[in-house]
Amino acid sequence: MRQAHQTLTVDTRGKGLYEITGAVRQWALGTALRNGLLTLFVRHTSASLLIQENADPAVQQDLERFFSRLVPDGDPLFRHRQEGADDMPAHVRAALTQVHLSIPLTGGELALGTWQGVYLYEHRFGRQTRQVIMHLLGEED
Amino acid sequence: MRQAHQTLTVDTRGKGLYEITGAVRQWALGTALRNGLLTLFVRHTSASLLIQENADPAVQQDLERFFSRLVPDGDPLFRHRQEGADDMPAHVRAALTQVHLSIPLTGGELALGTWQGVYLYEHRFGRQTRQVIMHLLGEED
Amino acid sequence: MRQAHQTLTVDTRGKGLYEITGAVRQWALGTALRNGLLTLFVRHTSASLLIQENADPAVQQDLERFFSRLVPDGDPLFRHRQEGADDMPAHVRAALTQVHLSIPLTGGELALGTWQGVYLYEHRFGRQTRQVIMHLLGEED
Repeated sequence: MRQAHQTLTVDTRGKGLYEITGAVRQWALGTALRNGLLTLFVRHTSASLLIQENADPAVQQDLERFFSRLVPDGDPLFRHRQEGADDMPAHVRAALTQVHLSIPLTGGELALGTWQGVYLYEHRFGRQTRQVIMHLLGEED
Repeated sequence: MRQAHQTLTVDTRGKGLYEITGAVRQWALGTALRNGLLTLFVRHTSASLLIQENADPAVQQDLERFFSRLVPDGDPLFRHRQEGADDMPAHVRAALTQVHLSIPLTGGELALGTWQGVYLYEHRFGRQTRQVIMHLLGEED
Repeated sequence: MRQAHQTLTVDTRGKGLYEITGAVRQWALGTALRNGLLTLFVRHTSASLLIQENADPAVQQDLERFFSRLVPDGDPLFRHRQEGADDMPAHVRAALTQVHLSIPLTGGELALGTWQGVYLYEHRFGRQTRQVIMHLLGEED
């Protein structure tokens, strides 16, 4: 049993889902570990992680529309707006989704279903550089 | 330190919570591991995993009513409806709950509290067959 | 590779976020493990765990206001009210946030970002004593 970890950097250009499935899979393969547990952890409070449908782009747009209705930017309910109208809504969206994901690795493959993609979910308007820690604990066979 | 994994299949007959606590516990006991970390991962984007109160059936009905109000089937907000009125709402409900759960195993027992049950949360109307990966990493004593 | 676990007890006095970052970090350091995976698990169905912004106290108040609007106490939608108006809303809030968190430990430090604090999120009005299981799996170097 051994472990590996690395930081994945994701540059974002506004709200929405940024797929990281390929980058995560490639890194996991490179560790030579074949069975174990992969954990992703985002080091921010205004971005999150999500597993979502990866086939129809309309899913991602609908998801963003849903969250825009549920947690509107500039909502007068919020007092914390040091960084603008999207500041507090970003924290709430992060609370409603996830900051970490754990995915079993079996036989050299992530246990993702056919339609599951792994996404960084950006909640701010502006350009951001996000860090996701990838951690894998397991065995080579 | 060693690990074990297996797929649990859950047949569902419409929206709602399906308890899997017993099946998960039985599998964990069968591995002979007594201390470690159990991870459950659902391989779908229209079903999720949830730990909820296991005593009063009204809790599960209330939860379903809440999600039906928050993410209504057939909501005109959504464009992705290839598989019907419950298609996109199912993805949103999955995003608002979890696709994975991690529960410590200590002294041969899952660390669940007295009132905590583990559930597969089905978000589609029709019959489905769902796969949950069970992964356990730990030691025999 | 080895593991450690311990129960953290948190006394709460009403709804809101209770920071546990310091207590968790102190325990992790005491295990002498330096690289691995930390998992926190709350053994209740009316409290949850959350990673949130730790700088401006207004964030925590805004978060509580958001959840009070989304899942109001005494909502006539709910039938399960054995323990009062905040009973079922507490279960829903727990479902919308997390019962477990996993955070990589690298080089003796939790991989938390600068603005990330770890909180127990209490959803009941009255005084409660909450148990959080801390589990760490890793290596000393």
